[in-house]
Amino acid sequence: MTQTSPAAVVLLSGGLDSMTVAALARERGFRLMALTIDYNQRHKVELDAARRLAAALGAERHVILPVDLTAFGGSALTADIDVPKDGLKDDIPVTYVPARNTIFLSLALGWAEATGARDLFLGINALDYSGYPDCRREFIDAFEALAAVATKAGTEGDRFRVHAPLVAMTKADIVREAARLGLDAGMSWSCYDPAPGDLHCGLCDSCRLRSRGFVEAGVVDPTRYAVGPA
Amino acid sequence: MTQTSPAAVVLLSGGLDSMTVAALARERGFRLMALTIDYNQRHKVELDAARRLAAALGAERHVILPVDLTAFGGSALTADIDVPKDGLKDDIPVTYVPARNTIFLSLALGWAEATGARDLFLGINALDYSGYPDCRREFIDAFEALAAVATKAGTEGDRFRVHAPLVAMTKADIVREAARLGLDAGMSWSCYDPAPGDLHCGLCDSCRLRSRGFVEAGVVDPTRYAVGPA
Repeated sequence: MTQTSPAAVVLLSGGLDSMTVAALARERGFRLMALTIDYNQRHKVELDAARRLAAALGAERHVILPVDLTAFGGSALTADIDVPKDGLKDDIPVTYVPARNTIFLSLALGWAEATGARDLFLGINALDYSGYPDCRREFIDAFEALAAVATKAGTEGDRFRVHAPLVAMTKADIVREAARLGLDAGMSWSCYDPAPGDLHCGLCDSCRLRSRGFVEAGVVDPTRYAVGPA
Repeated sequence: MTQTSPAAVVLLSGGLDSMTVAALARERGFRLMALTIDYNQRHKVELDAARRLAAALGAERHVILPVDLTAFGGSALTADIDVPKDGLKDDIPVTYVPARNTIFLSLALGWAEATGARDLFLGINALDYSGYPDCRREFIDAFEALAAVATKAGTEGDRFRVHAPLVAMTKADIVREAARLGLDAGMSWSCYDPAPGDLHCGLCDSCRLRSRGFVEAGVVDPTRYAVGPA
């Protein structure tokens, strides 16, 4: 990779998915501009994972931007609402953070336009997930359409591409993809409600999806769960 | 207005336009949830104006949310780039902040969804303006389409409405509208590059548009300019 490789802004939460996406962006020849949002989330420990991953993946820049979404609340991750521990359900759970990915992609778009990058990457997926609306293909398409009319670069004919290479993968596919890329999944963090001693709780939806992904992929799970794997 | 009136999230920068929009939202029967973004802008003094206006307009809540866009730069308002003082030009000036209104509306959407509001107001206009792409009708339409697929409420059938009642007004129209609403324009702040003594510089695009609006409307301009009106 050279200085003249194109740069991409990668939303890096610190989880398994965003880690895999960042490595895929790098594999495709992009220089990595990693963007992590410190939204005062319950699981702030994921920020440490993001720092480790940005360094390990050779990100050229890493911005951790504070945007305190507890000012708005409305989610178990940003307000005093319990994180569900009784297994995945059909409806959208209270861990949904209103407009989170819209906000995060908007910030990524701002950084991209400011620096000349035209590619954005994020690790959403719409199969083994919690049913969040902003993790689907329709969301990406609508955001690209917005970016085309919302920005100077867009109106001047540049196209912003939003890459979501995991969107149609199962969690097991993602675990296998991470292994193929030689990534240490133990460096990533998924749990919404960390247990004492920096353990994954093992019971929240995010832990259940993670754990099940390793099992289904037949890959050893390096995660330290407080309970489980569920 | 009663507790059962619907609430609306109003983006309140502290300028003449957002002041007028907030008053229009109130006139239409909405309870005001004012949202101001402290993006570490050069003209931070507008935050004081936003505070004054939120109080004067009887906003039920006022959130001033820090989102430091100088981390991205790329604009005369968020980086060490001079604010142009030589008059309005045809091209989009360096005061354009990449994806600013996309970011701001996304945050407004998050707050709205979290609290049950379905109406967003912002003071963009596409006539006497600096050519910013995110101040046009196309931008609003694309954002509404995004909100419909990006949110839990949207996918459940609720519709988020983005109101931009000034979008087809001239600055003179806005000055007249503010006067009709009984607003004190002197409480608002427009200047991008404040002069010592909390004066409007009189020469930046925003000052020129403001000053010209009062002249064309035939309304006395209460603004204290360091130079001009230009």
